[in-house]
Amino acid sequence: MTAIILHESTLRECVGIDRPSLDCIAESFGWLHDGRAMVPPVAHIEVADRHGEVDIKTAYVRGVDRFAVKIASGFPGNAARGLPTGSGMMVVFSAETGFCEAVLLDNGYLTDLRTGLAGAVAADRLAPKAIGTVGILGSGVQARYQLLCLALVRKIGRVMVWGRSKEHVSQYVQEMQLSHGITIEVADSPEELVRQSALLITITASRSPIVRAEWLQPGLHITAAGADFPGKQELDAAVLERADRLFCDRLDQCRRLGELQHWKGKRPLVAVELGSVIRGAAPGRLSDSEITVCDLTGVGVQDTAIADRACAMARTKFFELFAD
Amino acid sequence: MTAIILHESTLRECVGIDRPSLDCIAESFGWLHDGRAMVPPVAHIEVADRHGEVDIKTAYVRGVDRFAVKIASGFPGNAARGLPTGSGMMVVFSAETGFCEAVLLDNGYLTDLRTGLAGAVAADRLAPKAIGTVGILGSGVQARYQLLCLALVRKIGRVMVWGRSKEHVSQYVQEMQLSHGITIEVADSPEELVRQSALLITITASRSPIVRAEWLQPGLHITAAGADFPGKQELDAAVLERADRLFCDRLDQCRRLGELQHWKGKRPLVAVELGSVIRGAAPGRLSDSEITVCDLTGVGVQDTAIADRACAMARTKFFELFAD
Repeated sequence: MTAIILHESTLRECVGIDRPSLDCIAESFGWLHDGRAMVPPVAHIEVADRHGEVDIKTAYVRGVDRFAVKIASGFPGNAARGLPTGSGMMVVFSAETGFCEAVLLDNGYLTDLRTGLAGAVAADRLAPKAIGTVGILGSGVQARYQLLCLALVRKIGRVMVWGRSKEHVSQYVQEMQLSHGITIEVADSPEELVRQSALLITITASRSPIVRAEWLQPGLHITAAGADFPGKQELDAAVLERADRLFCDRLDQCRRLGELQHWKGKRPLVAVELGSVIRGAAPGRLSDSEITVCDLTGVGVQDTAIADRACAMARTKFFELFAD
Repeated sequence: MTAIILHESTLRECVGIDRPSLDCIAESFGWLHDGRAMVPPVAHIEVADRHGEVDIKTAYVRGVDRFAVKIASGFPGNAARGLPTGSGMMVVFSAETGFCEAVLLDNGYLTDLRTGLAGAVAADRLAPKAIGTVGILGSGVQARYQLLCLALVRKIGRVMVWGRSKEHVSQYVQEMQLSHGITIEVADSPEELVRQSALLITITASRSPIVRAEWLQPGLHITAAGADFPGKQELDAAVLERADRLFCDRLDQCRRLGELQHWKGKRPLVAVELGSVIRGAAPGRLSDSEITVCDLTGVGVQDTAIADRACAMARTKFFELFAD
């Protein structure tokens, strides 16, 4: 039993923001619909005295060669020491023997990637085909991935951003311009951002609602990707009621961890899982005037999917590393 | 961020069956009593189509430098291919930054060790000082560790074993004689084993009760270490009622996964956590005639404790591996 160790730089050579990776994440939502995935609840470690938190996600999928256990951490105190606040790694096991097959020391890269790709999968199915302004609420690492992944599925015209930290927003705008040639305008307020957006991506760590229902225009699609823990919230509960239809990555998880935890509607909550849309069991967007919201919390199937793909690619690319 | 990879052979040089390791596991139960440990529920992955299962255990402990996430698997189908059915590995994180500090590719060694040591901690606090016959119910890997660890805390005289597979029992007897100089007699039946035992260790994967209440003699201590999942059971429910006092590693976990899940008593279940005994908050054995039962399911604090110790020892022993 020899486990292979793959570092971030190798993994970046193996998988990136491209169509096959996008398809791989779309397929992982399909697994949920197929009933092929066994997804334990997210395990959460509260590191209270250091204000840190650790999440463990995993999924076993029938018919997939490997399964991953992903351990991701957020330690806000790291920033003061010039260290990244978020980190992560994955352990990959053989679905046949349970043996550890690979350790992916990716420093959270694969999580960033699969999260950005999930946003693109949602936009692909749920946003209008031709989108006007794309609004990005938040200016962290994931604001970068969401926009770059979106470019796989939609022609990107005007982009606006709003974030709490002017400094982070300005870094974001600069970086997207210099590294990717994407021009981004800075909105003065969340209201300006939302009112101008045809596609809105919310990706903050907010614990109180930022987006209000009265700002939404017909045809708007919102991908809410920030809330992934009890208490986190980016959308006012009225936004969920105002939407014509709600979508999510995994219903039971979104009810506990995502925007859907804040549902206050009088009618029972109805939200369609992305996997059902992908498998054609439920329709995506029905008209250009519908308001749609997709709540993404990040599911273990995405980790198993991207890890399996990374290992398969590494095996092809770096054949000599694998000793069997 | 550089994580160090430690393999089984290195880890075996760093930690073994000795007094400091025993103290380390005893201390980990103390952490539970102190309220210093944050222990998420065990995450379980059911690999139904291959009859495999994977458990993820972890614990963050205030004041401890590192915390571990342990992933252990059991794939019975491996046996037919001449592979071990059980495996495991741990990932160790810095409690300060959340960064991955070490990957322990121990093939389950540290789990075997901490589980055996927990049995010895229980026996040390709960078995009579002078024990007559030690009975071992089961003949797998853990039957070896339980007996060898017990020798740290009690003078071992007569030992008997019973197991379902005659072949495994005979291998066990041979191995303990040849490698450790311990002579073991084979009991004809569980009944003979239990009736002759002053200290009984049950360590099978049974899903139906083997040990009956009418076989118990006064003064007997039972460490029930096999049941660690819903449906597993080695002791008849009447054994729990017959016992004068019940102990366990972690009450809420034992109620779900251990022997205590089968409690049928009319009075409410009362079981004392080992940590309370270790911290002196509750008494251990009160007299030589008491019957005591300790239900062990294996707690994440044990994994964090043994992993932290292994890393600290490796750091001392193999200084050049650590690049900070």
